[in-house]
Amino acid sequence: MSRFFSEKYRELTPYTPGEQPKDMKYIKLNTNESPFPPCPQAMQAAAEAAKRTQLYSDPECRELTRLTAELCGVAPDEVLMTNGSDEILNFAFMAFCDKSHPAAFADITYGFYPVFAQLNHVPYTEIPLNPDFTVNVKDYLGINKTIFIANPNAPTGIALPRAQIEEILRSNPNNVVVVDEAYVDFGAESCIPLIRKYDNLLVTQTFSKSRSMAGARLGFGVGCKELIADLNTVKYSTNPYNVNAMTQAAGIGTLQCEEYTRKNCQTIIENREFTIRELKKLGFAVTDSKTNFVFAAHPAIDGGTLYAKLRERGILVRHFNKPAIQAYNRITVGTREEMDALLGAIRAIMEETK
Amino acid sequence: MSRFFSEKYRELTPYTPGEQPKDMKYIKLNTNESPFPPCPQAMQAAAEAAKRTQLYSDPECRELTRLTAELCGVAPDEVLMTNGSDEILNFAFMAFCDKSHPAAFADITYGFYPVFAQLNHVPYTEIPLNPDFTVNVKDYLGINKTIFIANPNAPTGIALPRAQIEEILRSNPNNVVVVDEAYVDFGAESCIPLIRKYDNLLVTQTFSKSRSMAGARLGFGVGCKELIADLNTVKYSTNPYNVNAMTQAAGIGTLQCEEYTRKNCQTIIENREFTIRELKKLGFAVTDSKTNFVFAAHPAIDGGTLYAKLRERGILVRHFNKPAIQAYNRITVGTREEMDALLGAIRAIMEETK
Repeated sequence: MSRFFSEKYRELTPYTPGEQPKDMKYIKLNTNESPFPPCPQAMQAAAEAAKRTQLYSDPECRELTRLTAELCGVAPDEVLMTNGSDEILNFAFMAFCDKSHPAAFADITYGFYPVFAQLNHVPYTEIPLNPDFTVNVKDYLGINKTIFIANPNAPTGIALPRAQIEEILRSNPNNVVVVDEAYVDFGAESCIPLIRKYDNLLVTQTFSKSRSMAGARLGFGVGCKELIADLNTVKYSTNPYNVNAMTQAAGIGTLQCEEYTRKNCQTIIENREFTIRELKKLGFAVTDSKTNFVFAAHPAIDGGTLYAKLRERGILVRHFNKPAIQAYNRITVGTREEMDALLGAIRAIMEETK
Repeated sequence: MSRFFSEKYRELTPYTPGEQPKDMKYIKLNTNESPFPPCPQAMQAAAEAAKRTQLYSDPECRELTRLTAELCGVAPDEVLMTNGSDEILNFAFMAFCDKSHPAAFADITYGFYPVFAQLNHVPYTEIPLNPDFTVNVKDYLGINKTIFIANPNAPTGIALPRAQIEEILRSNPNNVVVVDEAYVDFGAESCIPLIRKYDNLLVTQTFSKSRSMAGARLGFGVGCKELIADLNTVKYSTNPYNVNAMTQAAGIGTLQCEEYTRKNCQTIIENREFTIRELKKLGFAVTDSKTNFVFAAHPAIDGGTLYAKLRERGILVRHFNKPAIQAYNRITVGTREEMDALLGAIRAIMEETK
């Protein structure tokens, strides 16, 4: 830390991204990436855009916004594209939280929420999940706070039905409810159809997971046009050209391949259900994940130990060193071959530890 | 504005990017873009990266940072890569300004500085330029504020010699001095060689102009490793994967074509000097620009009128509706053909208005 660093950030603990080790080739099941490449149209459109980067990207992302709005069944002024969904989440913390509008989110959820809250000097409450990691909706009713709900939740994978989110929206009419749907394409219900009914709803999504664009950085928010206008005020005061031209092109290309996206999601769902079944056969407790990862713990082996032993065998998963979930590992669902390798390694490890 | 928008941003006036009209094909001399495409290595590397966007980009930008550090003659931990140089500038406002470290910058300079100051609730002082648009260095000595100097300055194009910036650095040892060198490759002196001498110096640069990557969004900061560590704390609390994989690849490719970059800069400098000479022959007052734009006014025609008449003729330049500079237009230096078209149009307009 330099002697110049502002007092206001001296206590800040930044977010820790999943490890990207370079010491050997791993089967990477630790950052919820897709095992499938982006669609050919995305690759080609990005390659074309790469030939004319001397010109600024469109700050309004007009074409990409139009197509994303079409996909979501909303109007373009109800959508804002961002540099990954982390950016739209930070914009939401900036725009809709302050000392009189503190934030609230689950105690076990996306680890970036408390960081965003600290960054923006927003007081926040962490609401405990039930012991089975489900959300207790009653805890969110009429709480007069800006609410962030990852749905499905991470790292648990568990989804709330839309009707329950609607209860939360209805009971907090004077606060924004942000529904972070990063993993929604793998089997959960989106709240986007509710944006015209609730002016306090902001839904965020990403092209990272289901659309194989994690490295391209593309997220977006959907809400009533007044909320989107506020978020645009923040964007144009922060980084007007936030989404580069190649990513805009790749996003446009990807939206022309919805069948490819759907097929990939279907494969991931099948591989997830297979993995959950097999893990249960081995005695694991596994949550009912509606995402591209599984969340699993075994009574006979500590989560950290399993993580370390898998790593030795060239398989990376994600372990969170947090009391309530330290028995668990979050394991990204990859190809069937990757899942077979994972299960083989787990069987061998369980055998060893007997 | 929604009823949910935080009080703290209700007065915020966002930055206005240069217009990108779609009604007809213009000769675009309004946003200081390069007239040259990126180098083939950049295009190809980006196209390759576009094939594997399912994986997250490297949050540390290791290879790109190493090469950028090499280019600058510094160590990798003295460099931070960002999503355009607007991002590093905002990070600097976040990290090094607050109520006890107010900001100071020229009254005529990059229009984003006051927006960043407002966004971050940082008090700021705008220091008047001399009537000839030069910086009066004495105004910056021992002022006990976090100083932002665009060098060369925009939209005036005028550069301060490094020795004068050194005076400012020396006389403000307890405040960070940010030297924004977006346009430095067109003939000004960089302050990067001073970073080991002054722990209060942060230099920011961009790949947008001289490296034809405006649309790819790539900027960076160079400073002592403690300053860079602070900026990394802000980055990892804001958007860890801030630079996408295609842009990282394009940046790496571009740094393999330094000769191409130098040749393009040389051409722009020649075209700039030509344009300045010709404008002066027509009776324009033109500043001594060390950038890829010229800043020019004519006693017989108002700046706004010239802007509008050029626009009618399909040539876009940038006019700032600000009292001190409203006689002027900022004109990006393009190819010789574009400059000939500009000068032809100006001659015709001057003829008309006689």
